[in-house]
Amino acid sequence: MSFCGQNHHLVRLRRLRVALCLIFLLGTGGFAAEDTLLARARSRFGIIPSTPPALPGNPLSESKIELGKMLFFDPRLSSSQTISCNSCHGLGLAGVDHLETSIGHSWKKGSRNSPSVFNAILNSSQFWDGRAPSLAEQGLAPIQAALEMNNTPAVVVATLKAIPGYVALFRKSFPEDQEAVSFRNVGKALEAFEATLLTPGSRFDQYLAGDESALTVQEKRGLAVFINRDCASCHKGTNLGGLSFHRFGVARKPSPELLPPSDHGRRAVTGQAADDYAFRAPPLRNVELTAPYFHTGLVWDLREAVVTMVRVQLDSKLKEQEIDDLVAYLRSLTGKFPSISYPILPESVIQNVRPG
Amino acid sequence: MSFCGQNHHLVRLRRLRVALCLIFLLGTGGFAAEDTLLARARSRFGIIPSTPPALPGNPLSESKIELGKMLFFDPRLSSSQTISCNSCHGLGLAGVDHLETSIGHSWKKGSRNSPSVFNAILNSSQFWDGRAPSLAEQGLAPIQAALEMNNTPAVVVATLKAIPGYVALFRKSFPEDQEAVSFRNVGKALEAFEATLLTPGSRFDQYLAGDESALTVQEKRGLAVFINRDCASCHKGTNLGGLSFHRFGVARKPSPELLPPSDHGRRAVTGQAADDYAFRAPPLRNVELTAPYFHTGLVWDLREAVVTMVRVQLDSKLKEQEIDDLVAYLRSLTGKFPSISYPILPESVIQNVRPG
Repeated sequence: MSFCGQNHHLVRLRRLRVALCLIFLLGTGGFAAEDTLLARARSRFGIIPSTPPALPGNPLSESKIELGKMLFFDPRLSSSQTISCNSCHGLGLAGVDHLETSIGHSWKKGSRNSPSVFNAILNSSQFWDGRAPSLAEQGLAPIQAALEMNNTPAVVVATLKAIPGYVALFRKSFPEDQEAVSFRNVGKALEAFEATLLTPGSRFDQYLAGDESALTVQEKRGLAVFINRDCASCHKGTNLGGLSFHRFGVARKPSPELLPPSDHGRRAVTGQAADDYAFRAPPLRNVELTAPYFHTGLVWDLREAVVTMVRVQLDSKLKEQEIDDLVAYLRSLTGKFPSISYPILPESVIQNVRPG
Repeated sequence: MSFCGQNHHLVRLRRLRVALCLIFLLGTGGFAAEDTLLARARSRFGIIPSTPPALPGNPLSESKIELGKMLFFDPRLSSSQTISCNSCHGLGLAGVDHLETSIGHSWKKGSRNSPSVFNAILNSSQFWDGRAPSLAEQGLAPIQAALEMNNTPAVVVATLKAIPGYVALFRKSFPEDQEAVSFRNVGKALEAFEATLLTPGSRFDQYLAGDESALTVQEKRGLAVFINRDCASCHKGTNLGGLSFHRFGVARKPSPELLPPSDHGRRAVTGQAADDYAFRAPPLRNVELTAPYFHTGLVWDLREAVVTMVRVQLDSKLKEQEIDDLVAYLRSLTGKFPSISYPILPESVIQNVRPG
């Protein structure tokens, strides 16, 4: 059942549920309402798995995951040999860099805020405009972007081939391929590693799994607002986002600062007028740890981000208490970050490929 | 006994030893010569310990080491919040960055090659010019250097105080201090972590420990050359360097490229004319993995570095075979790098201190 529509039936149903919630909150009929809220949540959201999902066309293996981890942390993938995937998607910092937009090659600034790599495998597309269908494709773009790692596929492959430890690991990870060390396989190995970057065990997931005490009363109120006010229409699925595209400013145009006229979002990908200023709904997992917010990264405070969304997407004014409840609920989405052993990177004994 | 002098007694003694080595190499009296080489090596070099040494004025604790590790990996110590200690002293890359000189704040280039942090605790002073007596002092300099992390003590402390997880860890690590979160304690925590960055177990250390089969015949020949040709006068102690200062170009002036006239080395620290163009003998542990070489970082090939040293420090021409033997010996200095779990960094829920 979708909540995108606004037909009468749904509106009435929602009113009924709000009434039920109210009864619960007054402490007179908790169980039934609680059950309903949980059921409604379960119909919209999934639990973050604790093991990586199967990747179409990219079977997982220990070797490939380890190779991907090395590549993720290796600054030698950049032309300067100083910038790694981890520079902008810090695995110690919830998968982000806490910058409005990232600093890349030659200290240039990127054009959009760095999204988290944690749970990114659960998104149906990658990037703010969804232009990459998979992490295997996504990961190859920053390596080549002039504002980011500024490298070329040919130099990356030459660099890796000059490092015997990598050659061995690529062969082990891609035994079918005659040319195991290829740019395409860099992307596949990165995707394999990133598939392990999951944060299960959040209190919200405990709740979805049936532990109704995992959320506080306030957080449950926030969850109810999140569903009732249609936040969950876009921020849906296991990642609470990452699955669909929506115009930023459905109800009211955001300030030009938050929606710079030069960045048309998904329209640049599809060419469709309907996609003008549309962006992929950002996943909200671990959102309390991924400031700053929006594609511009201009909003640092989670509450302010919520207020902005309510205004520009829903043309609504929520009560202060409802906003507080929403923010409290969003904080329950923080999961457990995996423990990662820092890779000792394979060394080239003589540096055949030197930084550019 | 020092090998710095060149008196007749020593020269004769050395000739005798070379003769003994020759006998060994001819396979006619191996044991005695082997024993002598080992004894001579043991009198000059130490074995890398597998546990951190005690630090004067900075007692180690698990909490302090963990805090130091977090700080080491945390880019928020830099004013841009993008550069960490690990950026230039990559723990996955033998503690270096494989650049001639590092790229720092605003993409500026540093003036000297980044030394490895591995085993640095065993040096008697830090930096190429030895201007820091300890790692606790050393670590605070790059944080403030305009070409590196470009921060100030006040901003660092304010940043850390805005991160509750850090405040708790500082308190636990420095229970005696009223103001646990201090810039000085940042240095102490970094030093505590760096004291664990040891690479024991190299084949040379196995040899020093008594396993005479741990080195090949060629490597033992190289070790003999290393001692006989006075390399070990400067590259001595457990780290094969890091203990004393020597003019770069004792015998012949290096090319101005390798010894830029603007960098007077240790003279800038002591003001003494005798220290003009003197540098701390670089430690040679894991040297095969720490290219490029010299304070300029201009020499990428280990063999070329050895040839240069022989020419400018010893005014000597070694046979090609002796150079090969030296390089083979140097490769036996590669130890086992510790396994490091990548820290999940404490988060500030709202970013109170933003990148500058």
